[in-house]
Amino acid sequence: MKEEKMEKMSRREFLVGTGGFAAGAAVGAVLGGGVFNLLPAAAAEATYPYPYVKLDPEKVRKYGYELYYQGGCMYGAASAIIKALAEEVGAPFSSFPVDMFKYGAGGVAGWGTICGTVNGAAAVINLVAPKPEAFPMISELLGWYSETPLPSKKLDAIAKFQDQAQSVATTPLCHSSVSNWCEASGQKESSPQRLDRCAKLTGDVAAKAVELLNAWKDGKFAPVYKVPAETAKCMGCHVGKDSMLNNSFGKMNCTSCHDDHTK
Amino acid sequence: MKEEKMEKMSRREFLVGTGGFAAGAAVGAVLGGGVFNLLPAAAAEATYPYPYVKLDPEKVRKYGYELYYQGGCMYGAASAIIKALAEEVGAPFSSFPVDMFKYGAGGVAGWGTICGTVNGAAAVINLVAPKPEAFPMISELLGWYSETPLPSKKLDAIAKFQDQAQSVATTPLCHSSVSNWCEASGQKESSPQRLDRCAKLTGDVAAKAVELLNAWKDGKFAPVYKVPAETAKCMGCHVGKDSMLNNSFGKMNCTSCHDDHTK
Repeated sequence: MKEEKMEKMSRREFLVGTGGFAAGAAVGAVLGGGVFNLLPAAAAEATYPYPYVKLDPEKVRKYGYELYYQGGCMYGAASAIIKALAEEVGAPFSSFPVDMFKYGAGGVAGWGTICGTVNGAAAVINLVAPKPEAFPMISELLGWYSETPLPSKKLDAIAKFQDQAQSVATTPLCHSSVSNWCEASGQKESSPQRLDRCAKLTGDVAAKAVELLNAWKDGKFAPVYKVPAETAKCMGCHVGKDSMLNNSFGKMNCTSCHDDHTK
Repeated sequence: MKEEKMEKMSRREFLVGTGGFAAGAAVGAVLGGGVFNLLPAAAAEATYPYPYVKLDPEKVRKYGYELYYQGGCMYGAASAIIKALAEEVGAPFSSFPVDMFKYGAGGVAGWGTICGTVNGAAAVINLVAPKPEAFPMISELLGWYSETPLPSKKLDAIAKFQDQAQSVATTPLCHSSVSNWCEASGQKESSPQRLDRCAKLTGDVAAKAVELLNAWKDGKFAPVYKVPAETAKCMGCHVGKDSMLNNSFGKMNCTSCHDDHTK
């Protein structure tokens, strides 16, 4: 009897994104914050990768900004995209435990390593795209993040602070990203201005990730990021078959941490 | 009719970890690699945080080593713990999309930022523990990772290479972690020896995370990591109310990247 019921549920009603389960929504509403349970999820039968549908980058940009203030940068970027996907598709996004991304704040528990915005966006990119397709998009995102003056002005209409200074992170690391902005703006790291800059950045990164994913969905993803000239120069000696680094790593700007000893 | 069925399923059969659904397992078996679907998951009704139960660190250490070779360091560390939890608890771990963690390989898509092992372990710590409890454990993990000679010898019995050199990462960054080991061992970054070192590291980090979580579960988690002396010295001037960095950040070893300009 049980088996028959499970089987019927599985074939008809667990198909991802199909059917309407108004009653199930009441069950879902019991869940605590951070799980966007709009429809009863068929997560058990959800296959990987999760199903991406094209999103509006500007909607995701706003979500990223707002969700930063609920859980930090990694949470903000990842849950902005997941929230938008849950609105479009429902399961399995609607039951994803987005609260787990709060760990990424401040470059992972405040250690200043990779910025939570790109750590979170990268996780979602790989949630919807398998590794061989995800890596080029993630690389493009990290390169764009490292070299683009940010934050944009696109959230000024809703943000706490308007017309903030822009800075170039140089690397995907929180420490250099935040330090460079504090230097450019004259603001302290713990100021509400810096927090608002990171909130805007969260929105900008989530929106950029959506742009990349939308292009990928259309079969039109075309990476433009090139390894910086400084890195290419270092790699001339430091990457090669006699070198310790004998593969194609070498994506960040080496001279952001290392001296150019040829000078 | 549908509503009644959903309600019955929800009350009785969706309770996390209860009941036996042998028929459901057949459904779950259809899923592709990387989703440990041992029981039909009630992930839709899974509340956050996910339910941690104490695990055997040595079992998780082996899983981490093996799973590294399936998907890299972040995948290996995260899915080792999730796999062990799925074996004990079933849902919601059994339907978690662990393949999404492959993005963390090589310090996130090969960019050399935070080591995937700690990025993945931190994610799982925050999956089972809410932020205020997760952060101290993650900080302890990153500090241990930064200062401990690794990898351990505990996987030598099953590993491809025995008695490998140990090194101290100094920071949680893949770049310094791998470079320091290559220097200590004389091995190239792309060598099978370096891969095996990272596989062992994946196991060691996953096992350490489990030790921290087990202690936390018993109410006995006691952090021991202290900010390095170099960092404390830098913070004397660089963190304070007149400084740009006027909060309690400052966890990594500053002199791993920056010169000590007081010398």
